[in-house]
Amino acid sequence: MRTKFHEQLDALTDRLTSMCRLAGAAIEAATDAVVHADLRAAEWVFDLTEQIEAVRGPCDEQALALLALQAPVARELRQVITGVHLVTDLSRMGGLAQHVAESVRRRHPAHVSSGEAQQLLERIGRVAGEMAAVAARVLATRDPGLAAELDRRDDDLDALHAMLLGRIQDPGWTGGVTAAVDVTLLGRFYERFGDHTVVVGRRVIFLATGAQPPR
Amino acid sequence: MRTKFHEQLDALTDRLTSMCRLAGAAIEAATDAVVHADLRAAEWVFDLTEQIEAVRGPCDEQALALLALQAPVARELRQVITGVHLVTDLSRMGGLAQHVAESVRRRHPAHVSSGEAQQLLERIGRVAGEMAAVAARVLATRDPGLAAELDRRDDDLDALHAMLLGRIQDPGWTGGVTAAVDVTLLGRFYERFGDHTVVVGRRVIFLATGAQPPR
Repeated sequence: MRTKFHEQLDALTDRLTSMCRLAGAAIEAATDAVVHADLRAAEWVFDLTEQIEAVRGPCDEQALALLALQAPVARELRQVITGVHLVTDLSRMGGLAQHVAESVRRRHPAHVSSGEAQQLLERIGRVAGEMAAVAARVLATRDPGLAAELDRRDDDLDALHAMLLGRIQDPGWTGGVTAAVDVTLLGRFYERFGDHTVVVGRRVIFLATGAQPPR
Repeated sequence: MRTKFHEQLDALTDRLTSMCRLAGAAIEAATDAVVHADLRAAEWVFDLTEQIEAVRGPCDEQALALLALQAPVARELRQVITGVHLVTDLSRMGGLAQHVAESVRRRHPAHVSSGEAQQLLERIGRVAGEMAAVAARVLATRDPGLAAELDRRDDDLDALHAMLLGRIQDPGWTGGVTAAVDVTLLGRFYERFGDHTVVVGRRVIFLATGAQPPR
């Protein structure tokens, strides 16, 4: 039988799942904005990050209520604190998607990148979007195997990111310095987004089971 | 009379002050490493970030002990949760100093930047170091006026950062694309470091007083 504590922890996890789905939608829209120099997609990102911030407050309150009303100790206390950290991680993922969208808006109607760099950014963006979707599934299912999957995807993302930096710094790069600066920052935002999904995966498993996921 | 709760909160704050001083020393050493292409300074940064991570565990444990033993509610609960967030912020500041040092190590024995970009990076690095010192003083004194000072310094840092990005993207930039990529990332690391000190300042005032600092 589930205790009151576990019921409330499940309710918090459900709300965090919504936050993660919004962050995933935000990074997908941000990537569309990059690929098509699409200002409406960029504005949709700002809308989504507002929605994330709107869920953030209630999540924080739910975690505080759990601590205040259930006064958990030992493992259960650590589980709730993990939930508190998850709120911050998911909000940060939204913030990074917003940074991507801001870059697009700054250069519009020009593209923020072109050619091979843009193709790589699209691939990176798609992997980041998939990672957010996997992280949301980890939140929904509490499946440690899925959480480990995020580590593998992050290796893919890091390899694509290294390739992107290599292309910019190649003597054959003809995009100019301004585009190089933009692409460098975009790559960094996606890389951090991916890092956060990995952390989210690990934290969810701990939150749900009180056990560290397999590395 | 100070209650047991407040004594323990003060003890946590003292330990966080040490973490913040280490983060300040790390960003100072990282800036020395950038300016002088100094590998020993870069290695000192790695040493300092290890020390930060060594304090992190005991800080987290102290916050958990406060929650488990004192079972605070309402404002006092929020104060301890703020302490939990502070541990993460300060650890991240150490991580950002480490990223700066890694850039230096990657290009050594060459300089990671030169000319005007390097002079700007030095100025940015010094402001970041001062901000960490102010944040440590905020932790030690719980002075809201000092916390507000961090907002002003962050405006200075942001202005220098915008100037740095402007220089790189100026048609007169002769540093090449590789240096532009390095300088872009270094600028971003310092900017994020500064952002974290501002957040630290705000959180400390809330942790110590339970009131939001003036904006």
